[in-house]
Amino acid sequence: MSRKVFYISDGTAITAEIFGHAVLSQFPITFDALTIPFVETVQKAESVKKTINDSFITTGERPLVFHSIVKSEIRDIIYSSEGLDYDFLNTFVAPLEQQLGVQATPAMHRTHGKSNKSYDTRIDAINYAMDNDDGQTMKNMDNAEIILLGVSRCGKTPSSLYLSMQFGIKVANYPFTEDDMDSLRLPEDLKRNKHKLFGLTIEPSRLHEIRQSRLENSRYSSLRQCRIEVKEVEMLYKKERIPFLDTTNQSVEEIAAKILDMTGMKRHMF
Amino acid sequence: MSRKVFYISDGTAITAEIFGHAVLSQFPITFDALTIPFVETVQKAESVKKTINDSFITTGERPLVFHSIVKSEIRDIIYSSEGLDYDFLNTFVAPLEQQLGVQATPAMHRTHGKSNKSYDTRIDAINYAMDNDDGQTMKNMDNAEIILLGVSRCGKTPSSLYLSMQFGIKVANYPFTEDDMDSLRLPEDLKRNKHKLFGLTIEPSRLHEIRQSRLENSRYSSLRQCRIEVKEVEMLYKKERIPFLDTTNQSVEEIAAKILDMTGMKRHMF
Repeated sequence: MSRKVFYISDGTAITAEIFGHAVLSQFPITFDALTIPFVETVQKAESVKKTINDSFITTGERPLVFHSIVKSEIRDIIYSSEGLDYDFLNTFVAPLEQQLGVQATPAMHRTHGKSNKSYDTRIDAINYAMDNDDGQTMKNMDNAEIILLGVSRCGKTPSSLYLSMQFGIKVANYPFTEDDMDSLRLPEDLKRNKHKLFGLTIEPSRLHEIRQSRLENSRYSSLRQCRIEVKEVEMLYKKERIPFLDTTNQSVEEIAAKILDMTGMKRHMF
Repeated sequence: MSRKVFYISDGTAITAEIFGHAVLSQFPITFDALTIPFVETVQKAESVKKTINDSFITTGERPLVFHSIVKSEIRDIIYSSEGLDYDFLNTFVAPLEQQLGVQATPAMHRTHGKSNKSYDTRIDAINYAMDNDDGQTMKNMDNAEIILLGVSRCGKTPSSLYLSMQFGIKVANYPFTEDDMDSLRLPEDLKRNKHKLFGLTIEPSRLHEIRQSRLENSRYSSLRQCRIEVKEVEMLYKKERIPFLDTTNQSVEEIAAKILDMTGMKRHMF
């Protein structure tokens, strides 16, 4: 049976999840995880403590409890459970207080809460990415911070959305389609913004797989067509000296972080 | 001058950023942060060490270094810099090894890397959210796991995208427009999926502010119109017993986590 894990917070618990997941992913075993967010009252904390203790009684093993709890009266209750506490917030806040000579002023909802400046930046960026996805319109290209290029299903849309959501960056994306392939060239609106262009590419066999699951046994999804499109597009990138990245076997996070790294673009959040 | 902070990793550094940001947000001061991802070679690590040391020399203060470095030869170089190390991965991995009786097998790209199952789930969910945003089509409503309702600019789109990106959940969203207000009712495709409906609402004054920045001094953005729409929609939610949430002053993370909490929906990732 998998070891039981709890991610607990008096906020969204998203930080606790990311923290716990990062640590646990270093182990070659599977875990049975449950997230409990918004543990904001003593009553709810007591009920969570009971859930943890019940899990101990049922499984005979102390559950792992990853938490980022800001309110000390809530934290104390969770600490008093039979769970094994992994508390990254307190582990690091105390030494930092010493180092900075500043007392922490724990405040709810700061980690994944809303500061007005970055909130507006982010929502504007998300709206921009939605409005300028898949070459729907070229009229806002001059406002883009970066313009992702690539064939259909090479990862443009998820990458654009992630860059806007996580880093507050305005990303447009433009697809090259089958019809473009005979004489592949950059449209005027892209040429004018050439310094913003960034190409994505992908192994033809992986593209074939992805397209097959979308539109089986079509010309669009055929390995031959995938090969032609990828080859043409990569030739264009090289000819026009557009930086580009192979997205095959990379997560959305990896693609986004590599785009920032390769272009030297600044994050608007963090 | 703000204290200098580095987020460093041999991967995307996204975990290091989230971890560091969560800890630092507990302090009422500002920091000057720089993210350095993909420190994968000894050569790059030595260059980062120099950057850290230069910062110490220039500012006279030891920079704070938050890292999640998997490769030990890279980590050792960063540790040997003048920075103050906050290493959440190692701090927790060692006690966990003891507890689990299992050796960690550090592997790159596991934290924000790509496992095939969750990768497909996630990309499918993102594509679903894009295709079913803003009531563009009703033909896929039966495949939604949750359908967000609300007036224009109350937070439906960012919430849908976040739920799909972070948790792999298939989310459609449907807008109520000015024209619907005279006799507000649920379309057939929504009625049939009533157990999936979740309403968003917002304070009229905040909605007015958001719409003003989009379409200034229009009927659409007038406080009067915002009041009417919000009132009508909330009445519909109550009449139809649709659970709903006020998004005013909440971050996208908070909205998404509360929707999961209120509906009891399961995450497909983590």
